[in-house]
Amino acid sequence: MSRWEPNARGRLERAALELYAERGFDQTTVAEIARRAGLRERSFFRYFPDKREVLFWGQDALREAYASAIANAPAAAAPIDVVADGLNAAAAILDGRHGLARQRAVIIAANPELQERELLKRATLASAIADAVRRRGVTDLTASLAAETAIAIFKVAYARWVDQSDEEDFGTFIVDALDHLKAMTAGHQGASSAGE
Amino acid sequence: MSRWEPNARGRLERAALELYAERGFDQTTVAEIARRAGLRERSFFRYFPDKREVLFWGQDALREAYASAIANAPAAAAPIDVVADGLNAAAAILDGRHGLARQRAVIIAANPELQERELLKRATLASAIADAVRRRGVTDLTASLAAETAIAIFKVAYARWVDQSDEEDFGTFIVDALDHLKAMTAGHQGASSAGE
Repeated sequence: MSRWEPNARGRLERAALELYAERGFDQTTVAEIARRAGLRERSFFRYFPDKREVLFWGQDALREAYASAIANAPAAAAPIDVVADGLNAAAAILDGRHGLARQRAVIIAANPELQERELLKRATLASAIADAVRRRGVTDLTASLAAETAIAIFKVAYARWVDQSDEEDFGTFIVDALDHLKAMTAGHQGASSAGE
Repeated sequence: MSRWEPNARGRLERAALELYAERGFDQTTVAEIARRAGLRERSFFRYFPDKREVLFWGQDALREAYASAIANAPAAAAPIDVVADGLNAAAAILDGRHGLARQRAVIIAANPELQERELLKRATLASAIADAVRRRGVTDLTASLAAETAIAIFKVAYARWVDQSDEEDFGTFIVDALDHLKAMTAGHQGASSAGE
């Protein structure tokens, strides 16, 4: 086997998600993942530090997408629009990953330790977003609220996205959740939603 | 020692927080907590299942405060006002606990396992709040966003409350955070906050 392994990361990720779904996360070994992907075990460790991180490596890309979109938002943009830019950039990372995201959600829902890991990753992401917003010169309170709002919208939109089988764009769910939040905090939601 | 131990729960909680601060959470035993509180070890287990739950027993009271305030909000109340009622009820639970909350925050910040526990408790609380809001006949999306907004505001307000040494009312921080969130999602925050 050559050292050049085209799309090795993607093959390892797909193999891992299949095996976690078939046997359970705890019962799967790195050796089995590598074998299913047609790679050697040491190849696995070039891409992931351990089998858990296969489920979470996308977090770095998400954090970078948020941070860069927030830093590059127009100087005059209101914090909520800065958050929206960050969310849209994060949503773009998940383009074409609907099937993988659905598999991943089932695996995490079945394992309390993975759920805790997911919550910790989200809390870390919230801190990173708050830092990025704070660097734009707003108060700590505004930066923290902007970050927690971003995480709240992402969480709600993500849960709805993986909960349905259509390959609809994640970005659509983000925009929808953000619009609903704006209407809700403006107090417009009560009467209309009761009739939906 | 009689079976009647006035305020045993409070004495155990204070003793535990002192010991966790002095020796670290991992280095403290239930026997030591009971001894410091002037109680027997078996008394401890009448109030707490383990030493970790000393830090989290208030979550049940919080959940009940949210659920009951949300259920009892006026039928015509908009979701954001229902959330506000829940938050105010939750804030009342923490009346007079500023010193304990500050001790607790330091202990949790020093221990990743306790941080994960805190995140898990908050996620569970978010689900309970969403269920309570959903029972009012709003859509799943509105209920989820209302719950995540409540948790976001609580988290930001709580961090600010324990971060300062004045014994100011937690409710004040809740109102302030909610007002800021409303202004932010309405897009009014950008210009004013930059000058603060």
